Amino acid sequence: MKIYESVSPLDYRYYGANKSLFQRLNQFVSEEAYIKYEVAVEVALVKVMARYNICSDQEAKEVEKAGREIATEEVYAEEQITQHNIRALVNCIKRKVGDQAKPFIHLFVTSNDIMDTATAMRYRDLTNQVIVPDLLKLEKLLIQMARAGKSMIQIGRTHGQHAVPITFGFAMSGYVSRLGNRIEYIKQAGNNLRGKISGAVGAYNAFSLVGKDYRVSPEDFEKDVLAELGLKASTHSTQLVEPEYITDLAYSVTSCFSILANLADDLRHLRRTEIGEIQESFKKEKIGSSTMPHKVNPKDFEHVKSMWKEFMPRMNTVFMDQISEHQRDLTNSASSRFLTELFTAFVHSIDRLITALNDIKVDSEKMRDNLNLSQDIFMAEAIYTLLAVKGHPTAYEYVRGLINSCKETGAKLSEVLWNDNNLKQFLNKMSEEQKEIIRNPEKYIGISERKTESVCSFWEGALPL
Amino acid sequence: MKIYESVSPLDYRYYGANKSLFQRLNQFVSEEAYIKYEVAVEVALVKVMARYNICSDQEAKEVEKAGREIATEEVYAEEQITQHNIRALVNCIKRKVGDQAKPFIHLFVTSNDIMDTATAMRYRDLTNQVIVPDLLKLEKLLIQMARAGKSMIQIGRTHGQHAVPITFGFAMSGYVSRLGNRIEYIKQAGNNLRGKISGAVGAYNAFSLVGKDYRVSPEDFEKDVLAELGLKASTHSTQLVEPEYITDLAYSVTSCFSILANLADDLRHLRRTEIGEIQESFKKEKIGSSTMPHKVNPKDFEHVKSMWKEFMPRMNTVFMDQISEHQRDLTNSASSRFLTELFTAFVHSIDRLITALNDIKVDSEKMRDNLNLSQDIFMAEAIYTLLAVKGHPTAYEYVRGLINSCKETGAKLSEVLWNDNNLKQFLNKMSEEQKEIIRNPEKYIGISERKTESVCSFWEGALPL
Amino acid sequence: MKIYESVSPLDYRYYGANKSLFQRLNQFVSEEAYIKYEVAVEVALVKVMARYNICSDQEAKEVEKAGREIATEEVYAEEQITQHNIRALVNCIKRKVGDQAKPFIHLFVTSNDIMDTATAMRYRDLTNQVIVPDLLKLEKLLIQMARAGKSMIQIGRTHGQHAVPITFGFAMSGYVSRLGNRIEYIKQAGNNLRGKISGAVGAYNAFSLVGKDYRVSPEDFEKDVLAELGLKASTHSTQLVEPEYITDLAYSVTSCFSILANLADDLRHLRRTEIGEIQESFKKEKIGSSTMPHKVNPKDFEHVKSMWKEFMPRMNTVFMDQISEHQRDLTNSASSRFLTELFTAFVHSIDRLITALNDIKVDSEKMRDNLNLSQDIFMAEAIYTLLAVKGHPTAYEYVRGLINSCKETGAKLSEVLWNDNNLKQFLNKMSEEQKEIIRNPEKYIGISERKTESVCSFWEGALPL
Amino acid sequence: MKIYESVSPLDYRYYGANKSLFQRLNQFVSEEAYIKYEVAVEVALVKVMARYNICSDQEAKEVEKAGREIATEEVYAEEQITQHNIRALVNCIKRKVGDQAKPFIHLFVTSNDIMDTATAMRYRDLTNQVIVPDLLKLEKLLIQMARAGKSMIQIGRTHGQHAVPITFGFAMSGYVSRLGNRIEYIKQAGNNLRGKISGAVGAYNAFSLVGKDYRVSPEDFEKDVLAELGLKASTHSTQLVEPEYITDLAYSVTSCFSILANLADDLRHLRRTEIGEIQESFKKEKIGSSTMPHKVNPKDFEHVKSMWKEFMPRMNTVFMDQISEHQRDLTNSASSRFLTELFTAFVHSIDRLITALNDIKVDSEKMRDNLNLSQDIFMAEAIYTLLAVKGHPTAYEYVRGLINSCKETGAKLSEVLWNDNNLKQFLNKMSEEQKEIIRNPEKYIGISERKTESVCSFWEGALPL
Repeated sequence: MKIYESVSPLDYRYYGANKSLFQRLNQFVSEEAYIKYEVAVEVALVKVMARYNICSDQEAKEVEKAGREIATEEVYAEEQITQHNIRALVNCIKRKVGDQAKPFIHLFVTSNDIMDTATAMRYRDLTNQVIVPDLLKLEKLLIQMARAGKSMIQIGRTHGQHAVPITFGFAMSGYVSRLGNRIEYIKQAGNNLRGKISGAVGAYNAFSLVGKDYRVSPEDFEKDVLAELGLKASTHSTQLVEPEYITDLAYSVTSCFSILANLADDLRHLRRTEIGEIQESFKKEKIGSSTMPHKVNPKDFEHVKSMWKEFMPRMNTVFMDQISEHQRDLTNSASSRFLTELFTAFVHSIDRLITALNDIKVDSEKMRDNLNLSQDIFMAEAIYTLLAVKGHPTAYEYVRGLINSCKETGAKLSEVLWNDNNLKQFLNKMSEEQKEIIRNPEKYIGISERKTESVCSFWEGALPL
Repeated sequence: MKIYESVSPLDYRYYGANKSLFQRLNQFVSEEAYIKYEVAVEVALVKVMARYNICSDQEAKEVEKAGREIATEEVYAEEQITQHNIRALVNCIKRKVGDQAKPFIHLFVTSNDIMDTATAMRYRDLTNQVIVPDLLKLEKLLIQMARAGKSMIQIGRTHGQHAVPITFGFAMSGYVSRLGNRIEYIKQAGNNLRGKISGAVGAYNAFSLVGKDYRVSPEDFEKDVLAELGLKASTHSTQLVEPEYITDLAYSVTSCFSILANLADDLRHLRRTEIGEIQESFKKEKIGSSTMPHKVNPKDFEHVKSMWKEFMPRMNTVFMDQISEHQRDLTNSASSRFLTELFTAFVHSIDRLITALNDIKVDSEKMRDNLNLSQDIFMAEAIYTLLAVKGHPTAYEYVRGLINSCKETGAKLSEVLWNDNNLKQFLNKMSEEQKEIIRNPEKYIGISERKTESVCSFWEGALPL
Repeated sequence: MKIYESVSPLDYRYYGANKSLFQRLNQFVSEEAYIKYEVAVEVALVKVMARYNICSDQEAKEVEKAGREIATEEVYAEEQITQHNIRALVNCIKRKVGDQAKPFIHLFVTSNDIMDTATAMRYRDLTNQVIVPDLLKLEKLLIQMARAGKSMIQIGRTHGQHAVPITFGFAMSGYVSRLGNRIEYIKQAGNNLRGKISGAVGAYNAFSLVGKDYRVSPEDFEKDVLAELGLKASTHSTQLVEPEYITDLAYSVTSCFSILANLADDLRHLRRTEIGEIQESFKKEKIGSSTMPHKVNPKDFEHVKSMWKEFMPRMNTVFMDQISEHQRDLTNSASSRFLTELFTAFVHSIDRLITALNDIKVDSEKMRDNLNLSQDIFMAEAIYTLLAVKGHPTAYEYVRGLINSCKETGAKLSEVLWNDNNLKQFLNKMSEEQKEIIRNPEKYIGISERKTESVCSFWEGALPL
Repeated sequence: MKIYESVSPLDYRYYGANKSLFQRLNQFVSEEAYIKYEVAVEVALVKVMARYNICSDQEAKEVEKAGREIATEEVYAEEQITQHNIRALVNCIKRKVGDQAKPFIHLFVTSNDIMDTATAMRYRDLTNQVIVPDLLKLEKLLIQMARAGKSMIQIGRTHGQHAVPITFGFAMSGYVSRLGNRIEYIKQAGNNLRGKISGAVGAYNAFSLVGKDYRVSPEDFEKDVLAELGLKASTHSTQLVEPEYITDLAYSVTSCFSILANLADDLRHLRRTEIGEIQESFKKEKIGSSTMPHKVNPKDFEHVKSMWKEFMPRMNTVFMDQISEHQRDLTNSASSRFLTELFTAFVHSIDRLITALNDIKVDSEKMRDNLNLSQDIFMAEAIYTLLAVKGHPTAYEYVRGLINSCKETGAKLSEVLWNDNNLKQFLNKMSEEQKEIIRNPEKYIGISERKTESVCSFWEGALPL
């Protein structure tokens, strides 16, 4: 199969066609990678057997060497015959060792001991070597953007309407915080994945037959094999590791994906022609539209949102896969294979977002212009608050009245305010600083700057940035 | 990228690694196929231009020839420069024609005229050439199984408990009916997909500039181009064809997928060791478990259910993709590409199910044994019904009382019945035929046989089997 | 339980607290309504028995009378004892009739004959009496808005960026079309719901015992009972009507809900402070924010989107409920009850949308201002198209070059164009009309007006508006 | 609205009609409860104002007193006028205090400061006072069942097929473990919910105007108000608390719900007529079917699964609600209200499961009978393992050969084994204990008993049972 004969957009377009992403991910997410990890489990198993004299060191070494020589193609060809993926792998390894070593390959274990353990390993490595590092890179960039924009006045928006002012950096620091929180969550979930070497139904039946002869309990044997691979055992297992460990990882990634999508949404809206608070560069070669030569589109941001739309619903499958009848029903067999796609799409989207963020130019002038669009009408909150603090019993309603006047006459709210004799007594009680803020809406940004800094500092302290 | 470096299980395992499936599907679902269909739209466009003398026949032929020479690799390489997939395609075609023809390539249209139209075409062809034929094959097999089993007594089960008897064929005829209904639905949806040649925002802006010069209205021009491709136009369009046409196809396929999953579930439960009403052959080479040599597993049925678990939730994406801001927001760009996967997985599952059904052996002896497990206690319904018809005012409650006795004493219900003096008057009113049924539970199958036949005949008449 | 002790927001807020909605819906969606419909099925059943002399007319009339007297509270109290909802209902009816009539109540049927048939009836009635009429009301309003705005110039937007001009009416006509299409779909699905009177496992076991005595086949008996209720029978049934009939209705509603959400999204974006193409009235009493007296928010539109977010994912449940083991597994028992909520929320959202649409004011001045924001740069498409038609071999690229100049110098595209000597030969070939459009971007609206009218007329013809 | 006029099955059936559940839950999940919690936030706010001399103690007390007098009906009536829920609440409180106190009610805050904070409080209380205690009750019961069954031999099942033996207690201990793990997760998420008192856009704009006058920073003021309510502040906020805190709670509950569903599935399958390893009592009054008097159905288990099918997909909404444009877009306003339903349904399902578990009888005789159904063929694993350990190079394949013979001749595997001369040399190396296990399949349960005990003990230590 050639790449463009693939059916998966990940394969022909987002992962397979992206050389750098492919190189970083294929050692974890490809089928070839999976088989490598499975071999690692089979090898660890025999190694620990040798430690307890179940087999000899020589036999264990033979298996290790055979493991290094396994090619995926060979395993798939064998599966054509066995109709069983792990038995195929086992047969391939066996063929490469002497008769003495043969009996010890895949002994005491069920296929899923190998598969669930290999899966835990590869997702843990993927978490630690790609997902978390990429997220930290994004986090760093967001901190930098937040700090750069911490004093850049921007109108805060709720319901898509002008609310009260903030700064652009403050808005970005919200993403710093939410992303920071998820990075910790993902790290924890990725490093809490578990393996199992407990046999067909989780009761260590096969190993129990011989444990006494070799003076090692099944639980200790399992612990040792998993320790070779840097894993701990599932508290209990059936044929399956308890599904919640991996469900937690899928969830932590999905809930983080939503944050990327939210940021992407925010930026593509700021990029609307009428808002224009961020811009992308108009590059000579880059085409926005095949028929409208003038178009420059926020397509990277749209892309991230689109990927989220595709991959968020995969959690439904993960939840369904938590359910397996008795010691296992195998209806999770195909579906659980697709989880690699979620992680791949997620990393792709992180990277795409980093690229897009590096490409935008924040237009602080346009932010100021937009703020001024509504004149000073959004100062209603400040004015009402101060009137109330100064004792006006119905300040909110009174200010709504003033706004009605403004809407009718087109006057500025502050003008109307200072000319209103009913308010004199309250206005007089205001400090100079308070009056100054009312006169100058750009000062009404609360603690946007300090909060931006404190959020950035907090996460710099909490994360290994 | 080699096949086992893919991330998608479809690519490395279910579609890409399955030669026959791959050959039947890749001409519709691969990226290469998509580009071929896009070229077909570009060619039809120029052809119709020639018809109206917008360009010359010679120019149209040049474009057609160029189209045949387009290689996907070339388009992807060009996209590296343009960062725009359709502009890349257009550039590739242009390079292969003379200066005279160049201006007419992709004229009047936006990229999405090409993409949405190509998508409609390829999904229609996929429906008619693969999905529907495969479903008909499955339907035929189900009809055959239903007829073969139409008199095979089986206990009907509700809540997993023995209810009252049916026949195995009657149970299968339920799937004949549900599947038949969906085949019609899918066919209709697949053949109601629409194209568009209405430009960047759906208002035919570009073509309107010149239509008068060439005496053709934009709507007629669109109709002609689409007719070349066997399509009709979307009633209204923005940059997008109305999304509901394709949503309907995705839905019809998904709702049919649930039926496959249901059938698979039923059969894997009938295959449980304790039930054993169907069996799979124990083949020498086929391995059921890597540690339990005795295992023969209904893994094909489990597989179909598993694929449903993976693909059913994709409808969430399809629903989200119905929403696009204004004339289009492009957050459906990546996500809509993944729809090919749903169709691929669906076809794969139909085929897997056909294979599995061909492999099973129905064990009518075991069905009879299971029926007899509950002695004749399930005849309670028949008895209560007849007592009621014959005038017993509290027949239901009375029979519940008899059952209590049976449970305590272990007696058969019919024995208790005939010995109950209170019931004599009602029993005497029963016809011989009615008494015979009560004595012989295997006759209490209602119209299972006739209904099986009538359902099968109905769908044979309704579908082109 | 008092209303504010409810847990469902529908009950305490959107349906239960909305008098007019409540009155229109409760006769279909409440539990009380459900029981009324169930009674109707029980009554129809006995009526048809009388027709075939299974019972007497007198007995049938007694049951009918008893049915009218059933109170929901009574049924629920009885269910405390029986632990079975339909047996509870049956007991309640029985208590109200003489001993002669008692045996014929609920004879030959299983609970689900009653429930599935009642469900089909009430959803059909809900469709015809509420859903479709409300949708037609919305459709009418949209047609009116489309026509009113058919010549109101608006910039078309893709990627949130200015694309090329349309009219506001044209944009609205897109919703006219999509909604029209769904109305037909919903109507069809709502009127294709089916009932069943086929007994515990669908094989008509109980009725078959006696059909011969009364000279009526089970299928004809079922047909007659359902005809009383205006329904047809499911082609095949188990304990359940084939689930696809109701799945289709849920889908048709959900896919229509997405259209409402899309419209709501469009309008709330047009309502953004910076865009301002639609406005809501600032009403004295209506509060936008509890702290910002100036706020007027598009909260009705946000509300519709929010309801869609809550209810769209319910389709996952509907798909899962298509699967039921053997003749039924009852894991759809609770979940299928929640479907009433989808319909209730949908009707609520239609009504909210109608209210919101009636409340907005379209600001055509602001539309024109927005269009002019980008000067005439979006005329790039028109210009490139005309140059191409007139024979320029690289028109697209050439115009991109002009745009670069404009961006650097701030000049208008048309100015640059007319001053470009390279283009003279092509410009000279343009008709006056073409030149006029290039000079006046507001004329570059394609067939927006005609298309608006044709779409509106089409749907006026197709729907009973 | 009367209870049976409700549209929500929770309201008319599962929560509203269940007196004990209603009483435990309505103080957290009802609308009335929500308003009570909102009042608590308003009161805390004024209390802390008094602490900093923004208002007087007297005024704070007035507000506190007014808060106690608020009736939900009053607030809803006021909302009819204001069209704003929190402004309605504020007006109601204001009406109950003197003019002096009026200005300080709801000062400095936005509606959502009140709502998000109240939501955090009520969900935390719900977690600690209902959800976790109920889960602990279930956990205790499961531990008891696991211990009671720890030596009860049961065949382990994979693919629905007999695999190798375990004990029933071992199977139950898997649920002890998975549930234990989730209890910790839920507790953590429920106690990590956050509040906010940071104003309209999260930048503390309003409070910043006056903080200096009263010598308290906005952050400290927020901290103090939240401390009154036992909460911490969201690390950063917009108009919203960071959504991930509540997303985590919804997820932890949903992923625990899947475990309940899995247990329910397992038990209803064990309850199948043919398997019969658990039984429910046949109670005089309890009706299984309205037409089949003999039916006793596992409807509680089916119910739990059904509720999961309804509520699991709600996570899609939660994920969508993580996304809110800029400082908030309000499309989460209606949808987030429905989260109470998830928690209500979850608690209902825990309770239903406890009831069901208390009702079942485990049939150890039937378990033994089922085990013996397959003779000793499942000992293939034990035999192959021992042969391999003793040096047989192709033990797996050899044993598969023996099984073929057994299938043909009907002989027991152990018989064939001991009679096979090829195996003598390996069999001779086996210990007496090993031979004994091979002869007596009921001993081949691995460490089922010890593991059951260790899992139960572990969770007893880890949880406050």
